[in-house]
Amino acid sequence: MQNGTRGPKADEIAASFAAQGMMATLGAELVEAGAGRVVIAAPIRPEVGQQHGFAHAALAFALGDSAAGYAALSLMPDGAEVLTVEMKINLLAPAAGERLIATGEVVRAGRRISVVTAEVVAEADGHRRLVALLQGTMIPA
Amino acid sequence: MQNGTRGPKADEIAASFAAQGMMATLGAELVEAGAGRVVIAAPIRPEVGQQHGFAHAALAFALGDSAAGYAALSLMPDGAEVLTVEMKINLLAPAAGERLIATGEVVRAGRRISVVTAEVVAEADGHRRLVALLQGTMIPA
Amino acid sequence: MQNGTRGPKADEIAASFAAQGMMATLGAELVEAGAGRVVIAAPIRPEVGQQHGFAHAALAFALGDSAAGYAALSLMPDGAEVLTVEMKINLLAPAAGERLIATGEVVRAGRRISVVTAEVVAEADGHRRLVALLQGTMIPA
Amino acid sequence: MQNGTRGPKADEIAASFAAQGMMATLGAELVEAGAGRVVIAAPIRPEVGQQHGFAHAALAFALGDSAAGYAALSLMPDGAEVLTVEMKINLLAPAAGERLIATGEVVRAGRRISVVTAEVVAEADGHRRLVALLQGTMIPA
Repeated sequence: MQNGTRGPKADEIAASFAAQGMMATLGAELVEAGAGRVVIAAPIRPEVGQQHGFAHAALAFALGDSAAGYAALSLMPDGAEVLTVEMKINLLAPAAGERLIATGEVVRAGRRISVVTAEVVAEADGHRRLVALLQGTMIPA
Repeated sequence: MQNGTRGPKADEIAASFAAQGMMATLGAELVEAGAGRVVIAAPIRPEVGQQHGFAHAALAFALGDSAAGYAALSLMPDGAEVLTVEMKINLLAPAAGERLIATGEVVRAGRRISVVTAEVVAEADGHRRLVALLQGTMIPA
Repeated sequence: MQNGTRGPKADEIAASFAAQGMMATLGAELVEAGAGRVVIAAPIRPEVGQQHGFAHAALAFALGDSAAGYAALSLMPDGAEVLTVEMKINLLAPAAGERLIATGEVVRAGRRISVVTAEVVAEADGHRRLVALLQGTMIPA
Repeated sequence: MQNGTRGPKADEIAASFAAQGMMATLGAELVEAGAGRVVIAAPIRPEVGQQHGFAHAALAFALGDSAAGYAALSLMPDGAEVLTVEMKINLLAPAAGERLIATGEVVRAGRRISVVTAEVVAEADGHRRLVALLQGTMIPA
């Protein structure tokens, strides 16, 4: 992890993140792992593109879902793991630029159900544009 | 494409699919491209796994979203391209086995808005299990 | 309840339905309460209309959500009650005609989480048209 | 409308709101109609309750969907009307108290597609609790 904000479960989240083959395949990195707030970023490369040259919707989904899931995990009891029950993504603009940055947050941390959101921005020439908004449900596994 | 059902836009869909870097990165193949019904599959490999060894939710999303998008495209006017407006995925069971198979279908093909669904099954030892259900909106670009 | 299909929990569902003030306010009736499949209908009246004269999206939501919830309840252990965790609705066509009929079904009945869908059709002059599609998550309370 | 914030389309929104039979049936009132931000509230009464005595999920949906829709309308070209394409609601807590207050906002106002969110809080004894979160898509009609 980079030198971002670190919550009480930052090490656990970093270890779980490192065990995800998909995150490595997408070139994703864990930027921050705070309490109830996690940031994940990945470069926009041809390998994760769609047919028009922008990043595939699945990249925004992967980063947003993982950031939101780890945000939920950061507030769960020790030893819990996290599972996505459902996730909805609205795509707002083409994912163009150098990289995508997803910030996941917890709206409600419950014993059985956590409700989460994520915002995904595309960074291009130092400017950031909101490209996707996610809202979903996580449970402890 | 394999020897699956081929609709009137099968060649166009196959060309678009081949231009998606993300589909190649995920090892996905276009199995069928019928009228209003498209099937895409990908192997479950460590490179697309999550921390528990199953396929990442983003693989089910990527295949389901693409299958549903191409199903919508198959019924759009010639020359149109397709964009995902929004997509919701419910995850029903761990994505364990040899491969995931997503079948996208069109519920309503409209001039401005198409409503689509996709089912994603995991194939293990010849058995298939429903692992994800998607429902979303596509527009011509 | 009318003389529709009756599952093992039909009496319990009918009693719960009768206790919902909102269902009475909307003029809704429980048409069927089968195992994993529940049907609820309501007339399209000015009192539940939107500004263009069609039924308000909230009517389709109310009927679809309730039908899906009771479908989930029908497969839950005795004594359980049902809560909606989340629900997504896609609106496919104006809800015009004499009445809306929602059919809720269970895609996966789990111990912790049930995944459900509902279709809502508008009936006009004996013809039925699909006007809304719902997909969501229910839990036992 | 009450003496809340008034955007440039406040009169148009108030007239459209008044033409919705469903809003009157639910006892809803238009509290604010700002530019890109609309607030609608309704009392929690037995007539809009579910079987456990709380407000029905459909009340939160109706208020949130309408607030979000009018927020989108406030930024659309003159003469446009607004249609819900899809809406997703996550329910966070029982809707208990005296009234529900929904605040709809526009995340992205596009020519073809507007992306909106809404928060619904329950007011009880002067305290407010977040009970529902909505995210959806609106189009000009």
